[in-house]
Amino acid sequence: MPRKIIRVNMKKLETNYEDLPEKYQYLGGRGLTSTIVAEEVPPTCHPLGPHNKVVLAPGIVTGTNAPSSGRLSVGGKSPLTGGIKEANVGTNFAQMLGRMRIGAIIIEEQTEGKDYYLLKITNDGTEFIKANKWVGKGLYEVYKDLRKEFGEKIGICGVGIAAELFGGNSGLCFNDPEGLPSRYAGRGGLGAVMASRGLKFIVVDETGAPGVEIKNEEVFKKGTAKLLKALGDHDVTKPGGALNTYGTGVLINIINENGGLPQRNFSRGQDDRSEKVSGEAKAEEIKKRGGVRPHGCHTGCVIQCSEVWTKPDGKDPVGVLEYESVWALGPNCEIYDLDTIGELNRACNDLGLDTIETGTTLAVAMEGGLADFGDGKASLNLLEEIRKKTPTGRILVNGTEFTGKAFGVTRIPTVKGQAMPAYDPRAIKGIGVTYATSPMGADHTAGYAIATEIMGVGGEADRLDTKKAELSRNLQVATAVIDSVGYCLFIAFAILDIVEGLEGVVESVNGVLGTSLTLNDIPTIGMQVIETEIKFNKAAGFTSLDDRLPEFMKEEKFPPDNEVFNVSDEELDSVFKF
Amino acid sequence: MPRKIIRVNMKKLETNYEDLPEKYQYLGGRGLTSTIVAEEVPPTCHPLGPHNKVVLAPGIVTGTNAPSSGRLSVGGKSPLTGGIKEANVGTNFAQMLGRMRIGAIIIEEQTEGKDYYLLKITNDGTEFIKANKWVGKGLYEVYKDLRKEFGEKIGICGVGIAAELFGGNSGLCFNDPEGLPSRYAGRGGLGAVMASRGLKFIVVDETGAPGVEIKNEEVFKKGTAKLLKALGDHDVTKPGGALNTYGTGVLINIINENGGLPQRNFSRGQDDRSEKVSGEAKAEEIKKRGGVRPHGCHTGCVIQCSEVWTKPDGKDPVGVLEYESVWALGPNCEIYDLDTIGELNRACNDLGLDTIETGTTLAVAMEGGLADFGDGKASLNLLEEIRKKTPTGRILVNGTEFTGKAFGVTRIPTVKGQAMPAYDPRAIKGIGVTYATSPMGADHTAGYAIATEIMGVGGEADRLDTKKAELSRNLQVATAVIDSVGYCLFIAFAILDIVEGLEGVVESVNGVLGTSLTLNDIPTIGMQVIETEIKFNKAAGFTSLDDRLPEFMKEEKFPPDNEVFNVSDEELDSVFKF
Repeated sequence: MPRKIIRVNMKKLETNYEDLPEKYQYLGGRGLTSTIVAEEVPPTCHPLGPHNKVVLAPGIVTGTNAPSSGRLSVGGKSPLTGGIKEANVGTNFAQMLGRMRIGAIIIEEQTEGKDYYLLKITNDGTEFIKANKWVGKGLYEVYKDLRKEFGEKIGICGVGIAAELFGGNSGLCFNDPEGLPSRYAGRGGLGAVMASRGLKFIVVDETGAPGVEIKNEEVFKKGTAKLLKALGDHDVTKPGGALNTYGTGVLINIINENGGLPQRNFSRGQDDRSEKVSGEAKAEEIKKRGGVRPHGCHTGCVIQCSEVWTKPDGKDPVGVLEYESVWALGPNCEIYDLDTIGELNRACNDLGLDTIETGTTLAVAMEGGLADFGDGKASLNLLEEIRKKTPTGRILVNGTEFTGKAFGVTRIPTVKGQAMPAYDPRAIKGIGVTYATSPMGADHTAGYAIATEIMGVGGEADRLDTKKAELSRNLQVATAVIDSVGYCLFIAFAILDIVEGLEGVVESVNGVLGTSLTLNDIPTIGMQVIETEIKFNKAAGFTSLDDRLPEFMKEEKFPPDNEVFNVSDEELDSVFKF
Repeated sequence: MPRKIIRVNMKKLETNYEDLPEKYQYLGGRGLTSTIVAEEVPPTCHPLGPHNKVVLAPGIVTGTNAPSSGRLSVGGKSPLTGGIKEANVGTNFAQMLGRMRIGAIIIEEQTEGKDYYLLKITNDGTEFIKANKWVGKGLYEVYKDLRKEFGEKIGICGVGIAAELFGGNSGLCFNDPEGLPSRYAGRGGLGAVMASRGLKFIVVDETGAPGVEIKNEEVFKKGTAKLLKALGDHDVTKPGGALNTYGTGVLINIINENGGLPQRNFSRGQDDRSEKVSGEAKAEEIKKRGGVRPHGCHTGCVIQCSEVWTKPDGKDPVGVLEYESVWALGPNCEIYDLDTIGELNRACNDLGLDTIETGTTLAVAMEGGLADFGDGKASLNLLEEIRKKTPTGRILVNGTEFTGKAFGVTRIPTVKGQAMPAYDPRAIKGIGVTYATSPMGADHTAGYAIATEIMGVGGEADRLDTKKAELSRNLQVATAVIDSVGYCLFIAFAILDIVEGLEGVVESVNGVLGTSLTLNDIPTIGMQVIETEIKFNKAAGFTSLDDRLPEFMKEEKFPPDNEVFNVSDEELDSVFKF
């Protein structure tokens, strides 16, 4: 039985089940969402108008017991960048779709009135339910309500108040295993695209799901075993390894030591106070408070980099505080207190905001005079402006570049309108090449050069060396494959260093699809996904000039290295040539 | 003695006088500002960063007694469009520069502190004076103060509160003959570019000016006499003709009758109530109140389309209420009351706002729920938010597209980020071609197809015919020449129909420059200016996709014709091919 596409027409309030077309048989995750978006969404359309779509697709192996494979890809035209967007999230919701053999959900058209809807999907079909009673409410409360109403085992995809404001910084929120609204396909404002269709929630109940069809069980088993072994062997991913023990926050001290952890809206790369918000400090606190650590963002993850952060008394669980979130809401705003960061992160989750874009927005707002750097209370109040839907909130919810423009700030750390994550490209050049050239806008996950430049994974590279086109390209291509297959990006640490792990990935795909792909097919497949995305962007009006970092990073020296971003335009333009 | 360039370095607070380089000898006005901007401003620079410049240049004949030639061109990279910008204004200030033989003023670099400055220019040199005491004040008060402090005969160029907010909708304000702050190089946010250099005012005292150098007095006299005769003969421009009697507002009834006067944020093209704000109604009121009508925006204008509008008791003179302003602040917001429109226009002048962009912003804000359509009081309050520099004000001051984004509105009538003026392109296709293809963004003055499509000047054309590339191109090219020579665009009515008038224009240029140009040179000169501008835009990242009207105009039928904008992309792309 082939996978199905559920096509959701929000104008007619109808769903149609279609067999996944032959041409999409070997696609999943990002490969599938980007292909569908490129084929069905006019590149020049208004992102919040009738022609945009939101496409959700689990990876190829998602829903199986392949380790750390509970990933969902969300695609559409981004209101933040104006280009194609793929946001990726780890959540049980993804696994449920996989087991229900739903290859993709395509949300299209727009409701005609002002009503918001919830779409319920079970193995028996779909149902639209009016969702107006949840409008204007925080997602922690709503997700609790939804589980009460639809059962504890449901998967939830939802958009918050940020999306009700059609904010360029509004993510799609998914539940973690505890049901907390803490897992986000956060970047690029796809929440607003979903909200502008009139859809507020998707609730999935997988009862009776047939499970992922595995064409060749033997090959699949062999492959997943090899991957599992590699993950267990590699220092970064093994039980008791860096990610498992400290979570992604282990990077705070490492990147700070390397002078690349942006402080005070990308003004310098190092601050001793950063240690107070490090992964090490956080892990210790979690132990004291009775939070959870390690923890998986979805069932069946073996890396378990996640956690449940709580208030000092162990109450009001937030979910995970990722490295990126801690940095954005912390050092980049000169806030060095985990409890304040936890509250800010909880507010982001509650409102439906991407934590990275929110932190960079707050820092730019601080530079624009809305609050003092370091003022956590003022930062929380600014996020409350979004909840109250005030004009200030409407500015902030549209992200870093929009906020900078509103408040006359010219030091805006964005590419293609999307804010940079937690690595300054002046101190670590390769990640800057990825920021510049990824079709997604500034995005560390698109081609995580940090692995090689800082962690020595997949080879070694001097972080200040400006010849990084090849490194970034290779990583972007490999990432496109991982995002399509449905594995967590963090398996990359293991499979870049341990070839059997990489073989295992390919074999797991062959097992599910009945294909006979080899390692040699990986670059072709990855490059094809990226080509599709870049062609969309070109048709949307992007040129090579969009593959550039902001002016101030090319002119303002960044302590402690006192480097500017000096990778040449030619080097940037050599990454992708389609 | 050649014309001089005054180069104003705001970082060093120094000015340098340079001879106008040989290569610029035959340039003036727009031809000069666009050339200097293209040569000196990096196309990808941040519009509010250190590398942008503001260039002011009077036309070639400006400052002579050539009729209706008191025009100034202002150029720079626009914070509104991200492309090159030329905004043009009629003001005595322009004539003073001409008579002082100042070919151009180039304002560059940025002050290092927070101080604002006034630059005083006399025949003896320049002086920087701190201007902080005028920050945050309305320009009506400030312009009165400046005349008290520097003399009644000065010319003033200034930026208002809108520019202090670095708003994409902030113009450069010039005095009219009565000293009112009512003549604007309004479009494209060049006020913010000036303010971001730290310059708030330029005050010019021309005492002792040598006058424009005229190389061949005889040819010049012959030419200006021919132009004067043509202006006096043509129905549109003659004394007692349409413009002279009713001002530009004569168009309200005409465009409304043709179904092309956008009402309620470009929702329909006709409303009987529009008559209440027509030029005819306005002229009658002015007579009753003791305002001035007709009136010239600068000394020596023979068309005299301007006026001085006052409150009902004849007090609080506003200056002119142009057709575009009346429409933008009136019918497009469903406001059909001249006194309300007068107050709104006064607020725009006082704050340093472009009236067109302000009216379209208010209408989009109304669609976004900030006020009811037709609510003049609420509109005034919204403009007061700009004065108070509130977050709402910071949204509005950034213009129509920014406001639409902040409030989730998708019906945004802009091209290249700049709002459309008072003619709906669905009802009058040729002006739509100009909106789409002008390097300036949506701009009626760039190639005023209305002349031919509605008024039968320069030939006739069915307004619904979609083959308008040639018409728009010819008009855009001719306009570039007029903007460079320094004549008011309204001479076009006469010279398109009366060839002796056109000859007169060329002869007046030959007289001043000592050249021997012929009518055949006009297309080449005009095309060169536009090519320079379009090349800048391309280097700034523009593609043919920027030469398109917004999605909703291609899909939403516009009553009463119920037409969409159906000019093909091919037709649009055939206008300019560089």
